[in-house]
Amino acid sequence: MATFLEQLETPVPIVDLDRLAHNLDRMAAYATLHGLRLRPHVKTHKATRIAAEQLRLGAVGLTCATLREAEVMAEVCNDLLVAYPPVGAARLERLARLPQHVRVAVAADDPAALDALAVAAKLGRRTFDVLVEVDLGMHRVGVATPERAVQIAEHAARSSVLRFAGVQFYPGHIREAVGEQDAALQQLGRDLAPYLDALTQAGHAPAVVSGGSTPAAWRMHEVPGVTEVRPGTYVYNDRTTALIGACDWDDCALTVLATVVSVSVKGQAVIDAGTKALGREPLRADGDGYGALLEHPEVVVSRMSEEHGILDLSRTRWRPRLGEQVRIVPNHVCIVVHLFDEVFGVRGHAVETRWAVEARGRESNKWYEPVLHEGPRAV
Amino acid sequence: MATFLEQLETPVPIVDLDRLAHNLDRMAAYATLHGLRLRPHVKTHKATRIAAEQLRLGAVGLTCATLREAEVMAEVCNDLLVAYPPVGAARLERLARLPQHVRVAVAADDPAALDALAVAAKLGRRTFDVLVEVDLGMHRVGVATPERAVQIAEHAARSSVLRFAGVQFYPGHIREAVGEQDAALQQLGRDLAPYLDALTQAGHAPAVVSGGSTPAAWRMHEVPGVTEVRPGTYVYNDRTTALIGACDWDDCALTVLATVVSVSVKGQAVIDAGTKALGREPLRADGDGYGALLEHPEVVVSRMSEEHGILDLSRTRWRPRLGEQVRIVPNHVCIVVHLFDEVFGVRGHAVETRWAVEARGRESNKWYEPVLHEGPRAV
Repeated sequence: MATFLEQLETPVPIVDLDRLAHNLDRMAAYATLHGLRLRPHVKTHKATRIAAEQLRLGAVGLTCATLREAEVMAEVCNDLLVAYPPVGAARLERLARLPQHVRVAVAADDPAALDALAVAAKLGRRTFDVLVEVDLGMHRVGVATPERAVQIAEHAARSSVLRFAGVQFYPGHIREAVGEQDAALQQLGRDLAPYLDALTQAGHAPAVVSGGSTPAAWRMHEVPGVTEVRPGTYVYNDRTTALIGACDWDDCALTVLATVVSVSVKGQAVIDAGTKALGREPLRADGDGYGALLEHPEVVVSRMSEEHGILDLSRTRWRPRLGEQVRIVPNHVCIVVHLFDEVFGVRGHAVETRWAVEARGRESNKWYEPVLHEGPRAV
Repeated sequence: MATFLEQLETPVPIVDLDRLAHNLDRMAAYATLHGLRLRPHVKTHKATRIAAEQLRLGAVGLTCATLREAEVMAEVCNDLLVAYPPVGAARLERLARLPQHVRVAVAADDPAALDALAVAAKLGRRTFDVLVEVDLGMHRVGVATPERAVQIAEHAARSSVLRFAGVQFYPGHIREAVGEQDAALQQLGRDLAPYLDALTQAGHAPAVVSGGSTPAAWRMHEVPGVTEVRPGTYVYNDRTTALIGACDWDDCALTVLATVVSVSVKGQAVIDAGTKALGREPLRADGDGYGALLEHPEVVVSRMSEEHGILDLSRTRWRPRLGEQVRIVPNHVCIVVHLFDEVFGVRGHAVETRWAVEARGRESNKWYEPVLHEGPRAV
């Protein structure tokens, strides 16, 4: 018995399997063509089956932000980059306890964090590769001067359990459309060069220079010195990715299937996907709303409550029926995936498969057991 | 062995148990004093242990938005209001299958939805109470005229398996601070009266007139005719609730415990709580940022990535150390709870208990099993 979209309970994220396959192929081909190593960020999909496919298509390893992501991905990958500061006892302990056969690199911007990482390495009887995080304009994390980068590289190199491996940066400040990134990419190259020069002159030539995110990934080969890219969003894409030209609208693989639950208020329709299904992410391109209909991109989710999304019908003659299903292309797909426990894979209207968002939760503090007696008062 | 905050892995939501108890007591006392029935919305906590305490303190039943919430709460409560349009086959089937001993009321704004609800009632060999949803200014769902309300009441009354029970409205459009709600509440009363009059004259006097949400709950007794309130946020409160005067800052019971993971960029500190822990909810009061420090309310989360929150240090002389823990009061607590699988209960620095956010997921489409052969290609 085949299953069809119309039978699915909403709200639910659904993935067009053909589009997903195309997106995976396209980024793999780009990286191969330009001699860049592809280390996809798993934050977008958080699922081993997609990670396994990325590796099959040539990815050299995976990028993770949380330790939950790293633990889950260690099941399918033996080369992980934890692109997140190694700070906090619990995070360090989980780093230490990752499987021994997995090579683990960690990005850091502080000598104190490296000292703690070295302790964790000893706890885990292992070594960590270290990438120095440099700030090239995002102003989130990262060192601000080549001197500081050299200092951290030397700090890592002095440790018997750490190995300086290179440099990482995140070009999230590049917000231009793909065709308009010339100046930003040239500036990025000018900002990166002094770090590479200083490290090389200090005897710490970086083997890895890791950059890239989906919006800038397609042109990262234009930045001299970059060896690796870490895009995440490209597997599914989203409304922002499409509107900045990093994919076509028809490359948006993940949509939120929703049902029209009220048509009572004039000029709008209400769907059962609100902030608890779509997030409240701004569109990082020209346009408004929190998502748009796949089949009617001029119809946007203009307002939301937790479980309600308001479709603005002022720009369309299309009028939905009560109970009709619609598919929303979200502004930012990584947030949507994080809100659900599983996604469904479809081809056309046929539902072919489902998979868990395995690395969604934190799985943290699992050691904790309440120690106090719980009396009759429940809270 | 006692457990202390400092031992918890971050980011994690923690609840001050004394503040929670105070918040529960305070709303129960307000409702008792003013003769209002209290039917708390569980969307905020999604946990049976807190629902059980609300009922123990006098709540007449519970309000739910999702069917997952209703199914979970049916374990501790036999009187549920599903304050959400009964639209879509899966939602209706789950309504039908709620335990027989649970009285279920449903809010609706469309005769077609009532027809479907009646079918579900027959499937479940049960009856449903019906509240007519009226739009008093929120412009989200609800009928816009008293005539339409009467039409829906009569539609329900004609069914052998539905029972017209009254009226529901949601005053989410009232955004004024508690002390400045006079005009809005008077307007609400003027807007509500024609519905109550028309229904009464048509022989459908509403037994239930259900309104209220945390921001306007404390003054809902000033609106003539209201019999019931459905606040949710009051159990935990949040930055918005405090800044509009619906609670004191010291009544904020839930905070997100986070760790400072980078102090590398000047003028800021980076914590490990970003949009995947705090959401990206605007402050619905004067002020900026996505949350503020419990102990330093002048320090706000000014920017976020998925796993990074940027603390703006421009308004404080406080400077955090790398690895230091901080507690964030989120702008909108309901979204934060929805992002986590569990919360921890604390008194001071001592961690006393943990509980699951049991109704967080959707638990939808559980009937679905893939029917197609899965070949070696993973996606």
